[in-house]
Amino acid sequence: MSLPRAVPADVPESERARFLANLHRVTQGSGRLMLMAGDQKVEHLNDDFVGDHVAVDDADPEHLFRIASRARIGAFATQLGLISRYAPDYRDVPYVVKLNAKTHLVPARSADPLSRQWHTIEQVVRLRDTAGLQMVGIGYTLYPGSAFEAEMLAEAAKAVFEAHQQGLLAILWAYPRGQHITDEHDAHLIAGVAGLAACLGADFVKVNAPSAGPQSLREAVRAAGRTGVVCAGGGERGAEAFLRGLHAQLTEGGAAGSATGRNIHQRPLAEAVRLCNAITALDCDGASLHDALRILHGS
Amino acid sequence: MSLPRAVPADVPESERARFLANLHRVTQGSGRLMLMAGDQKVEHLNDDFVGDHVAVDDADPEHLFRIASRARIGAFATQLGLISRYAPDYRDVPYVVKLNAKTHLVPARSADPLSRQWHTIEQVVRLRDTAGLQMVGIGYTLYPGSAFEAEMLAEAAKAVFEAHQQGLLAILWAYPRGQHITDEHDAHLIAGVAGLAACLGADFVKVNAPSAGPQSLREAVRAAGRTGVVCAGGGERGAEAFLRGLHAQLTEGGAAGSATGRNIHQRPLAEAVRLCNAITALDCDGASLHDALRILHGS
Amino acid sequence: MSLPRAVPADVPESERARFLANLHRVTQGSGRLMLMAGDQKVEHLNDDFVGDHVAVDDADPEHLFRIASRARIGAFATQLGLISRYAPDYRDVPYVVKLNAKTHLVPARSADPLSRQWHTIEQVVRLRDTAGLQMVGIGYTLYPGSAFEAEMLAEAAKAVFEAHQQGLLAILWAYPRGQHITDEHDAHLIAGVAGLAACLGADFVKVNAPSAGPQSLREAVRAAGRTGVVCAGGGERGAEAFLRGLHAQLTEGGAAGSATGRNIHQRPLAEAVRLCNAITALDCDGASLHDALRILHGS
Amino acid sequence: MSLPRAVPADVPESERARFLANLHRVTQGSGRLMLMAGDQKVEHLNDDFVGDHVAVDDADPEHLFRIASRARIGAFATQLGLISRYAPDYRDVPYVVKLNAKTHLVPARSADPLSRQWHTIEQVVRLRDTAGLQMVGIGYTLYPGSAFEAEMLAEAAKAVFEAHQQGLLAILWAYPRGQHITDEHDAHLIAGVAGLAACLGADFVKVNAPSAGPQSLREAVRAAGRTGVVCAGGGERGAEAFLRGLHAQLTEGGAAGSATGRNIHQRPLAEAVRLCNAITALDCDGASLHDALRILHGS
Amino acid sequence: MSLPRAVPADVPESERARFLANLHRVTQGSGRLMLMAGDQKVEHLNDDFVGDHVAVDDADPEHLFRIASRARIGAFATQLGLISRYAPDYRDVPYVVKLNAKTHLVPARSADPLSRQWHTIEQVVRLRDTAGLQMVGIGYTLYPGSAFEAEMLAEAAKAVFEAHQQGLLAILWAYPRGQHITDEHDAHLIAGVAGLAACLGADFVKVNAPSAGPQSLREAVRAAGRTGVVCAGGGERGAEAFLRGLHAQLTEGGAAGSATGRNIHQRPLAEAVRLCNAITALDCDGASLHDALRILHGS
Repeated sequence: MSLPRAVPADVPESERARFLANLHRVTQGSGRLMLMAGDQKVEHLNDDFVGDHVAVDDADPEHLFRIASRARIGAFATQLGLISRYAPDYRDVPYVVKLNAKTHLVPARSADPLSRQWHTIEQVVRLRDTAGLQMVGIGYTLYPGSAFEAEMLAEAAKAVFEAHQQGLLAILWAYPRGQHITDEHDAHLIAGVAGLAACLGADFVKVNAPSAGPQSLREAVRAAGRTGVVCAGGGERGAEAFLRGLHAQLTEGGAAGSATGRNIHQRPLAEAVRLCNAITALDCDGASLHDALRILHGS
Repeated sequence: MSLPRAVPADVPESERARFLANLHRVTQGSGRLMLMAGDQKVEHLNDDFVGDHVAVDDADPEHLFRIASRARIGAFATQLGLISRYAPDYRDVPYVVKLNAKTHLVPARSADPLSRQWHTIEQVVRLRDTAGLQMVGIGYTLYPGSAFEAEMLAEAAKAVFEAHQQGLLAILWAYPRGQHITDEHDAHLIAGVAGLAACLGADFVKVNAPSAGPQSLREAVRAAGRTGVVCAGGGERGAEAFLRGLHAQLTEGGAAGSATGRNIHQRPLAEAVRLCNAITALDCDGASLHDALRILHGS
Repeated sequence: MSLPRAVPADVPESERARFLANLHRVTQGSGRLMLMAGDQKVEHLNDDFVGDHVAVDDADPEHLFRIASRARIGAFATQLGLISRYAPDYRDVPYVVKLNAKTHLVPARSADPLSRQWHTIEQVVRLRDTAGLQMVGIGYTLYPGSAFEAEMLAEAAKAVFEAHQQGLLAILWAYPRGQHITDEHDAHLIAGVAGLAACLGADFVKVNAPSAGPQSLREAVRAAGRTGVVCAGGGERGAEAFLRGLHAQLTEGGAAGSATGRNIHQRPLAEAVRLCNAITALDCDGASLHDALRILHGS
Repeated sequence: MSLPRAVPADVPESERARFLANLHRVTQGSGRLMLMAGDQKVEHLNDDFVGDHVAVDDADPEHLFRIASRARIGAFATQLGLISRYAPDYRDVPYVVKLNAKTHLVPARSADPLSRQWHTIEQVVRLRDTAGLQMVGIGYTLYPGSAFEAEMLAEAAKAVFEAHQQGLLAILWAYPRGQHITDEHDAHLIAGVAGLAACLGADFVKVNAPSAGPQSLREAVRAAGRTGVVCAGGGERGAEAFLRGLHAQLTEGGAAGSATGRNIHQRPLAEAVRLCNAITALDCDGASLHDALRILHGS
Repeated sequence: MSLPRAVPADVPESERARFLANLHRVTQGSGRLMLMAGDQKVEHLNDDFVGDHVAVDDADPEHLFRIASRARIGAFATQLGLISRYAPDYRDVPYVVKLNAKTHLVPARSADPLSRQWHTIEQVVRLRDTAGLQMVGIGYTLYPGSAFEAEMLAEAAKAVFEAHQQGLLAILWAYPRGQHITDEHDAHLIAGVAGLAACLGADFVKVNAPSAGPQSLREAVRAAGRTGVVCAGGGERGAEAFLRGLHAQLTEGGAAGSATGRNIHQRPLAEAVRLCNAITALDCDGASLHDALRILHGS
């Protein structure tokens, strides 16, 4: 299994125990990450939270926190502002602070994407230490191939380093995007940005699932080395199909867990909770697909 | 009613009492904001302050302070420079420092809007603490969809966090704008930017009133969760029509108060004061439209 | 008369006496500013300092200091570099440090203007305090309507605040300029930028004289409130015509003094000194035009 | 031989011993650098690490560390993130932290290259001092001729200075690139950027091998003075041809060592180790080509 | 003679003696600067250092230091990186650190020039104070008229101030350049940028020699006031012609010395030394042309 086998050297001695506890927490001791990704309220504004196929529960941001609290998850990633607002009522949830975000209002065909860091690591740590919240890590989205790539690479590198200095995990979202990117789902390109994330020091990197199928993820897993590779959940699918896909990513692709957003939160609370539990079983318990489906169906 | 039910976690223990007092002050204990918005001297230069339909009182910036002082309001938002100049004579007024501003001289069709932060939170706090003024919060205008969105999101996120650290409320103005925005008044888009403001940690967000009517504001209110949604007052209307519209926003739309500028200050002092009082009755006392109109007419 | 009636709140208690002394000095106790503006060596390079209609004295920068020292003036505004070089020999002169400047080599039709801050307030104060010079204030030029407006507004706001923190006056030059500005001399537009300067906290704002005549300045004077409005002297005119125009600005337009450059320094020393004295008589003594002309003619 | 004959003056007295030890280490006491360059996982993403002519070992980033550890090398240059992850298991390797990097996704014909600094020297030193790793130097890539040249020159100059202040070697990669560069391999242009690197204070500069043959490197060697010039290894070649070319660069061109990437790591571990040993023999022992080939063949 | 008659006020009391010693050193007590300008290895890459008319000595950067050490000069200006490398062996030379530099690879017709500051004054001073080198001043190149003018003016102003704070001389290179500059050698334009340099606080400004002949330099000399004006040496000429031209600049044009690069270093060491000595005789001793030529010819 591809996972961080050692604490990276930029975690100082004094923060090793915290880093290992965070790693243990988000992987449930398995080394494989179960991430509930809830940063879409910026990335997609309200598009993912209302509509025919979206549970009415999802219109309220607290839905995300209710799921994260009631389900068995590794960690819940969202913006610091939401965490500040809801976490005092959901103190049991391990949080990953998504440091940067952008809307989809400027279309990629018009301008290459730029997503800048909203908060410093120092601010994240100040919040962690004064509010007594379970801040286990930070997240940052890269768009390699964007005309603004240089700015994001420089921010991400420093953020990863400073996060590690504070015992926080560092997770990168890496999506090739820009006028020169013709196929975001090409397995070789995905392997490239997975390796890039490893060079930036990421503990885990979230990439697009390659279009050539789960086995084609192997190139990325190898390229990332000790950095764990997880796939974005993508648009909403049937829950069974989703779990089947994830099982294949884990077993055939060598994924180091999963990072799922819409497929979780667009469901009603109880169903979302069961799906999370099933995902965690696959990611962290090495459960069979059969067992995961039983969890999903509450049977 | 949609309002901040808890002090956000980025308000440290030592500043909780101040934050709650500020929240109490600007909502008159109701949780619903009554904001007198007076930042138009930059945004619209002198266009809003002279003209056939504008009271002559409004030509002098002190008019804003006279209203804010004599009327019952939640808070008065304007630039720090004006506050420094007039607040020593109007110490009873609770001030919201509008941190960024731009003129309308570069038309949106020519270039996407960019409004940069004028003062740091540290400067605002220095002024508060040395001059003994009632600084209750800060304001920042976002233009999601602008090519310069990334710069404003990064400034706003840090400003909200640092404001909370100092016990100050954070209010965001969120107006989708840029060459790719076709309808600023679309209810779904407004809901999107309201949710964005929640992710940035805003206590309240000021949005355009959706064109589909007050009930269509509900999507934004839900999307913003514990962040209160208030609507911009828009261009000048008859006072009765204005109060009727606000009453509908509050009762049908679930607005968490109001933020009104031109509709207040373009009137003569006495009339402006009565209108403020009527607005506050609607926002903070849960008054009936009938009662609000009686206040307006001083009867 | 329109002038700062109170010390702004961003002047801390410990600097009030200094601020008031500076205000008294530059207005000769009248509340109306007499500013000798000598920043043209950057703005116009050597164009204003040589030529058929320019006194040969003006070719040497020391001419500016000789005038400022021998004449009765409120303050002399120029760049810090010149002040450092000559002020040790002209210690009696009150100086306003012009913080930003640009050349006219890039024409406005080619690119919107950008003028960046050369020195920090901290550097100005270091110079004041170690060299024992009479630094009474700072100046900054804004170009509202420029594509680079956001950068200049953000610099200016901080500069005004920090100047006030140190007991220094803050004077803004505000000239609407850029590809979307069709008439820099429109009275309503000038009123707009005068109000903008008030929002930035300026003690005085220097604007273009409106083309519609001195009475049309009234809108700007009202819009600026407690911020005093003074007009740029413009290109060289006959001295009598100049004084007549200034007298009208003060009496009909409500100007809070004057800011004059070329009309002073393009004359031989003795004549320039007499013109300064006449200007100061109008600005600060409330002298009649008749008296001012007598001073001009040394009679 | 062209090599730094003295410790540069920006290495303070207290860091001289460390600097000399680092120089001794990376040159094996010879003054000529043997650098294993492993920054391609960012520069070329996964293109260099998989393919028909690439050993399967190379798909895993640990391959780089295995080679660096088992072979006799001067130093191994790669990104800080990879070093943090693997160096704890490969503590015997001397590391050069490559400070900046970019992907090749934005083609040079579309936009001039910009590669920004990922980490500060302070961060590199913090890692060195707390993790007890052998950080012997830093690397930075310049693209003279790029429209973004000014930004990279300013970063590089400061990085070299601060590295020297901390006893670290400074190595620059200098590749002329941009829309106005017609021949990156022109010997005179290469000499120009070698001299530029000397002006920036580099201890060694890595340049393209000039197309006119090894003797044409002499101009660059002279232009760089006390800064050692090494050539990029370029695309993969047969190992014997590679060593023959390097021997000529050293003997005919006056190169101060070598910097080799793909030609090393695209081979299986054992072969890569033997090639490294052969390179080091040429660079640092002044071995004959005959001897180097014997080492390559393990005979 | 036009020269700094007083220590500028931004040199603090504690640094006056050092500043005066530096001024005395670079002017040999005469108030007129003799500057050997050696920044061409960046500005022109290797173009000035090899070729038919260039002495072979000049291919090695140490040639510059040998000349500076053996000849009688005022100061030698070059980049900090070269100084760090060679100055320990040439401790007798007074150095001016050229703070910014750019290559000529991006042609002016393609983009306006931008040259950014490589090192901070604090770094220069750290080097001076720890390495015990004779750092007498700093240099900075401005391109007034460039679209990037604002950035360079802001850097230069701060650099001059901070240099003076540390007792260092400040020398500006001021070359009008950009798409709107039609004649860099126009005497009136040169006078303009000389005056600009005075406003920036420069002790000396290096300008292009005006094409209208040495007497036409007088306008610049007057415009610069107490800031000394020196002319760039320009392309290589015969040594006699060069001295004749310089003599005319000094006597007819009022130049405050000279700044010479290629005309010095493109000659063999002995000849370059004699030319320097002849230049210094003209600049600092007020020697006759006859005497200077005798020195040149070693007779």
